[in-house]
Amino acid sequence: MIKARAAVAWAAGKPLTIEQVEVAPPKQGEVLLRLVATGVCHTDAFTLSGDDPEGIFPAILGHEGGAIVEEVGPGVTSVKPGDHVIPLYTPECGECKFCRSGKTNLCQAIRATQGKGLMPDGTTRFSVGGKQVFHYMGTSTFSEYTVLPEIAVAKINKEAPLEKVCLLGCGVTTGIGAVMNTAKVEPGATVAIFGLGGIGLSAIIGAVLSKAGRIIGIDTNPAKFETAKMLGATDCINPKDYDLPIQQVLVDMTDGGVDYSFECIGNVNVMRSALECCHKGWGESIIIGVAGAGQEISTRPFQLVTGRVWRGSAFGGVRGRSELPGYVDRFMGGQFELDTFITHKMGLEDINTAFDLMHEGKSIRSVVIF
Amino acid sequence: MIKARAAVAWAAGKPLTIEQVEVAPPKQGEVLLRLVATGVCHTDAFTLSGDDPEGIFPAILGHEGGAIVEEVGPGVTSVKPGDHVIPLYTPECGECKFCRSGKTNLCQAIRATQGKGLMPDGTTRFSVGGKQVFHYMGTSTFSEYTVLPEIAVAKINKEAPLEKVCLLGCGVTTGIGAVMNTAKVEPGATVAIFGLGGIGLSAIIGAVLSKAGRIIGIDTNPAKFETAKMLGATDCINPKDYDLPIQQVLVDMTDGGVDYSFECIGNVNVMRSALECCHKGWGESIIIGVAGAGQEISTRPFQLVTGRVWRGSAFGGVRGRSELPGYVDRFMGGQFELDTFITHKMGLEDINTAFDLMHEGKSIRSVVIF
Repeated sequence: MIKARAAVAWAAGKPLTIEQVEVAPPKQGEVLLRLVATGVCHTDAFTLSGDDPEGIFPAILGHEGGAIVEEVGPGVTSVKPGDHVIPLYTPECGECKFCRSGKTNLCQAIRATQGKGLMPDGTTRFSVGGKQVFHYMGTSTFSEYTVLPEIAVAKINKEAPLEKVCLLGCGVTTGIGAVMNTAKVEPGATVAIFGLGGIGLSAIIGAVLSKAGRIIGIDTNPAKFETAKMLGATDCINPKDYDLPIQQVLVDMTDGGVDYSFECIGNVNVMRSALECCHKGWGESIIIGVAGAGQEISTRPFQLVTGRVWRGSAFGGVRGRSELPGYVDRFMGGQFELDTFITHKMGLEDINTAFDLMHEGKSIRSVVIF
Repeated sequence: MIKARAAVAWAAGKPLTIEQVEVAPPKQGEVLLRLVATGVCHTDAFTLSGDDPEGIFPAILGHEGGAIVEEVGPGVTSVKPGDHVIPLYTPECGECKFCRSGKTNLCQAIRATQGKGLMPDGTTRFSVGGKQVFHYMGTSTFSEYTVLPEIAVAKINKEAPLEKVCLLGCGVTTGIGAVMNTAKVEPGATVAIFGLGGIGLSAIIGAVLSKAGRIIGIDTNPAKFETAKMLGATDCINPKDYDLPIQQVLVDMTDGGVDYSFECIGNVNVMRSALECCHKGWGESIIIGVAGAGQEISTRPFQLVTGRVWRGSAFGGVRGRSELPGYVDRFMGGQFELDTFITHKMGLEDINTAFDLMHEGKSIRSVVIF
């Protein structure tokens, strides 16, 4: 049992509090990680708000980490102490029906327990004064030390700066992967990206890496346009500047519609616009944003019968253990940068400020440095 | 100007009447066809009912024909008198943005005039006693003679029986093509087909040709199961036999859901079931049925974010001039049969009986022999 400083979410809607938590050693097939840095993501805020129907408390949130393996449990063979890793909220066991399908990154090996805030053996590794504290998304990166199954860590290049590549643990990979993996955008394509937060900006990077011909950013906050253009957006438009529905505006400005669109907000009305701005015959719309509980998307089926395709993407369709290290290598090779995303850095003791900055729209990402 | 016997739809909701119509000769780029046979399809009935917001009267309906070229207008080079052809409601010009994309069969070369019941030059070739009669779907096969643009006829094997392969002009190709062209079902896949009318039965043929491992037919009328099984369905189920939603029944009976589903009815609630019975991670649902005006499909976006794909298919994604002749050759090669579909045959004078049989659910297809 080791002691770790962690930010604990005791209840929905309350600020996190910094606690000394006890972390039990890794069991069979598990690894103990020492966190170096963690991003603070909208999904953490969503769960903390209480709007997440699957939220469990008390828990240690956080899922966008950069870490070093401290200790491995029995049977662990693929990583060793000292390895640099990114925790994976979508693991890759390589053996389940999903992994073997070759068609999806949604490994289901530990889904049931992960959804309950537990390790695969049905227990937690965290406690405070003897009181059990739950895991979150299987990662719980808001702690100096955390325990994960071996199948849920991606071993990466040791040269990579963990305080930057931690962002590849969620948002940046989600955006880039949705464009390159899920949509497979081809050179010259016209792309529309709805929502220019961290995911949307990452999708712009993906579109640039895919050599898209035209990259249209859409946001109701024009303050985001400068960064979007700096990263490679060719046009930025604000739906508030038009009387017509935004899908019609996009169809008009692209001679019939875009080849690919990406919804990076989680708004079901925007999801419809994103589908309907696609070109008849072949346009594909990819939902990345997570909508509120119970909300539904809708459209006329004619939109699909005339050739549009509606898909979604989770973690950019990226298989964490086999593909994420390649994303880190691309970053190290200078194919894209991450500094633009990191608008704020802070110690763990100031983590509630990261949530405030997010809610105020002042940050793209805050990174907590341990 | 030649005289032809034709069934004219004078107004929505009225029976067709057999008339002597005048057919003007083909103009530049047009061909005059002599019909040998025509199927009677639900789409004809939909327009005749008055529910089709784009229906125009008076018109000569019909779009599932087998015909012989009688005369060609100036500039026509790809067909000559005596050629056997299938009229195409989706033409293939080879030159528009859609044809050149390589991604869709939805040629738009003559869409604007076709939708108005006119030939590409903005006029009609039909009249009765000097009164203009409109074309329908660019084909108007309920007439002994009809005029089409050259780009809207597919030249086929002269040995093929036109009174059978006329069905490849719509329903059968739509079903087979949705499976083989749009979904690209692979060997061993599990497939669900909602609605076992002509389109659904054709989709079963497509699934058999694709070597699907399991083909599940779904219909509320169990009288259709025998034919479905004869054509290759491995299971047939009736949603009325279950308390659970049909998507849950299918997920349970297929260890997580089907690989591909096809909606062959035009019911937006069934479209949702068809999507939601798909396997997490990779299942794809293809909408083939045409829903009523203004109706919408909906689902939780989570269905897509977790890997399901929602698409549609029109005319089976088949490019008429370049690909339909191959379907005729497959039929001639014995890969599938059409006799099962042709439950009734009649002369043009009895065409209203074909609509009655369809409405009473007594026919799969009636074929009118000229």
